[in-house]
Amino acid sequence: MEKLYEGKAKVIYKTEEEDKVIVFFKDSATAFDATKKAEIEGKGVINNTISSLLFELLEKSGIKTHYIKKLSEREMLVWKAKRFDLEVVVRNITAGSLCKRLGLEEGLELKPPLVEFFYKNDQLHDPLICVEHIRLLNLAEDWQVQSMKEMALKTNQVLREFFKEHGLLLVDFKLEFGILPDGSLAVIDEISPDTCRLWDAKTREKLDKDRFRFDLGDLMEGYRRVLEKIQGG
Amino acid sequence: MEKLYEGKAKVIYKTEEEDKVIVFFKDSATAFDATKKAEIEGKGVINNTISSLLFELLEKSGIKTHYIKKLSEREMLVWKAKRFDLEVVVRNITAGSLCKRLGLEEGLELKPPLVEFFYKNDQLHDPLICVEHIRLLNLAEDWQVQSMKEMALKTNQVLREFFKEHGLLLVDFKLEFGILPDGSLAVIDEISPDTCRLWDAKTREKLDKDRFRFDLGDLMEGYRRVLEKIQGG
Repeated sequence: MEKLYEGKAKVIYKTEEEDKVIVFFKDSATAFDATKKAEIEGKGVINNTISSLLFELLEKSGIKTHYIKKLSEREMLVWKAKRFDLEVVVRNITAGSLCKRLGLEEGLELKPPLVEFFYKNDQLHDPLICVEHIRLLNLAEDWQVQSMKEMALKTNQVLREFFKEHGLLLVDFKLEFGILPDGSLAVIDEISPDTCRLWDAKTREKLDKDRFRFDLGDLMEGYRRVLEKIQGG
Repeated sequence: MEKLYEGKAKVIYKTEEEDKVIVFFKDSATAFDATKKAEIEGKGVINNTISSLLFELLEKSGIKTHYIKKLSEREMLVWKAKRFDLEVVVRNITAGSLCKRLGLEEGLELKPPLVEFFYKNDQLHDPLICVEHIRLLNLAEDWQVQSMKEMALKTNQVLREFFKEHGLLLVDFKLEFGILPDGSLAVIDEISPDTCRLWDAKTREKLDKDRFRFDLGDLMEGYRRVLEKIQGG
């Protein structure tokens, strides 16, 4: 297969159809601008499984995504999208960079949820930006920013409710957006414990990539528990 | 006189009237979170003179400020204000932290001018914030943020035109806002080459605090040239 793009955790391959691509989930884990790296066997398989399940959930809930279907253990077929250089973060509970940036304690409930935009740019370390900077850098039209915000909040509602039913707290998550071949704005990339902070609802144990970032325990054990919970009980 | 507050470049003293205070301009210069410091003889005198002149200009242009009158070389009488923990930056030309943060070249014209809000907090190094963070941290009401933005842009129009007439380019500047005893929202603090980036309109020579930050030449020479230009020719 012809490689179109290789990121830190995924590879995008061409298909025979111009408007469809394959997302291949790797086992690489990176954190802190890729200064911390590891290969974690099986992570790609589990993230593809979780992402596919969550994209299906979003589609069922009327939220447009790039997802078409899961092709294999590590492969997902998606619509080819023109990606915005933006990361859209939705936060329900204070954690991570927000706490550091604003001097907030971890674990405080955010009501309403907070939506933040970051400029997806490795060299600049993905800086926080406001709508005025998006305009200045020509990263998206104003109406697209507004739509992304609304879609991110709707995605949050759907995911938060779903995780809650399965004993998990959705602390925060990062979305990426793109324009699909039919011109529609859609959630793209992945939705997995690499891109969501998920805590056990009872014990508040961290089951997401923070285990890797801060050496809080076996990464795969956390990811497997997320998958078990959302698939089963 | 009883000291109410001492900052990096100014001291606030009580007066016999509850609703008025005196701003005393010191000679201290600080940069980079006060990791670079110096005493620069005469800076306080010149900044008080420039600030008084500019506050008078704003008042004449219908922009509410805390300014009452210049009392002496280093002292300004102002209305006592309840300060917002915000720094409002207006940018006409790319420079400084904006360039670093977003990877932009210095000297590009910003059309329309860019307004940015920063959380005034030394410990956190005055981080950039968006309207959602202002709401979250309860730093100001939404309508106050909107008013500050409008007042900052009007201030920019007035100052930019004024400096232009006197051969100076207003690259960017920082404003602070507060609530005066009569309940009105007003521009407070100071407006000087400590808080404005000012370039010679012909040569683009930097005449502001960047001279101190980056050792570009005698600070006082730059500040004196600003004062001479706006007073005289």
